[in-house]
Amino acid sequence: MASVLIVYAHPEPTSFGAALVRRARAALAGAGHRVVVSDLYLEGFDPKAGRHDFLSSADAGRFHYQTEQANAASNDTFCDEIAREQARVTMADVLVLVFPLWWGAPPAILKGWFERVLAYGFAYVDGARFDTGLFRGRRALLAVTTGGTTARFAPDGVYGEIDRVLWPVQRLTLQYMGYTTEEPFVAYAAPRVGDAERAAYLDEFAERVVAVASKPVDRQARPPKPLEHVPEGAWSRSR
Amino acid sequence: MASVLIVYAHPEPTSFGAALVRRARAALAGAGHRVVVSDLYLEGFDPKAGRHDFLSSADAGRFHYQTEQANAASNDTFCDEIAREQARVTMADVLVLVFPLWWGAPPAILKGWFERVLAYGFAYVDGARFDTGLFRGRRALLAVTTGGTTARFAPDGVYGEIDRVLWPVQRLTLQYMGYTTEEPFVAYAAPRVGDAERAAYLDEFAERVVAVASKPVDRQARPPKPLEHVPEGAWSRSR
Repeated sequence: MASVLIVYAHPEPTSFGAALVRRARAALAGAGHRVVVSDLYLEGFDPKAGRHDFLSSADAGRFHYQTEQANAASNDTFCDEIAREQARVTMADVLVLVFPLWWGAPPAILKGWFERVLAYGFAYVDGARFDTGLFRGRRALLAVTTGGTTARFAPDGVYGEIDRVLWPVQRLTLQYMGYTTEEPFVAYAAPRVGDAERAAYLDEFAERVVAVASKPVDRQARPPKPLEHVPEGAWSRSR
Repeated sequence: MASVLIVYAHPEPTSFGAALVRRARAALAGAGHRVVVSDLYLEGFDPKAGRHDFLSSADAGRFHYQTEQANAASNDTFCDEIAREQARVTMADVLVLVFPLWWGAPPAILKGWFERVLAYGFAYVDGARFDTGLFRGRRALLAVTTGGTTARFAPDGVYGEIDRVLWPVQRLTLQYMGYTTEEPFVAYAAPRVGDAERAAYLDEFAERVVAVASKPVDRQARPPKPLEHVPEGAWSRSR
């Protein structure tokens, strides 16, 4: 039995993304897995990084984000919203991100979740990235809905292949943290295909997400509480 | 003489990104160009897409973002914040985006600016994308600061080449709108290099941005007021 965190980013409860989340939740629960959903719009998640992330301050004069994050990680002084999300991430063997592709990338509300929740000192520290990442042994799966058709994401399509489009998320975010990334599930042209195709997407996703949750997870690789660190980039002058 | 809009996304006024903006503004003004800066953190820009984007509503029962954007574009009912930013974009021959690379992508506050300001009906409509994009004839330049070193962005580096990392912004955002994209300016490892290297980055960026602003702009290609459109993706059922 795996613990699965679904992070979902779409403002409309009747969206196809919402339907994907409902189906995944039901399929996972039916297969005996634990599921938690972070519904970022519904929960009013704030995507803007800033001092409100923290109950403490390492440097009140100059805001260096990673330094403040390291300080909060050492002192357990993340704000409630971030602490709650970090607890969900820590608990999860499998992380599933469900979002529409807007401007070739996750919505800002999800990008802000990366920035604020996946903080220095919690999600990564210097010397613990990729193969040595704190989340190695865990799995991550993207579920993306697009307006664009498969032709636009073909090797010669105007957008380029989906692996190229999703590179910043797959490589520089999830793999960076140590996650083993699964092949993304993509519902191409979700608003334009017919009901039968959308039903097939839902079936396919339910099967995919249960298959991923059923893979072995290396529980030895749960991230330790990181030691106290000073980020490499704590540059303190502007010119 | 060109009109240049610099959109800047960093929370700290003493950041190196802020120094880049100051130098660019001074160099451009010194060369006789018009410059406007949208300082997203300073101006308190809201990155979260939603109904607050609009003074009107096309469908109060179901929130389909592009449909609401098309409606607002037709009726001039974008909220003040978005209308102000759209006026700046319309005015600018050259768009310069200055931001730190966080998780391989622009900060959420800038991603939210793409989503809310570069709205359907204003920035693109069906049938007007890439070579036929509404902003064809104009130029766009990215100025990116990274924590990662050049080695990490080498062809065999862990992050992949910068063109690969920036593909969603360059291709699926700027080129999608019709902009001619310039080679990105990248201040690699900005917090880690020495003062001399940072000074060289500032000099190089000032030269680059003036050179780009001095290139010919095809003013015939200014976007017309788009006709009334119904977005292709206005799907209205969830399953």
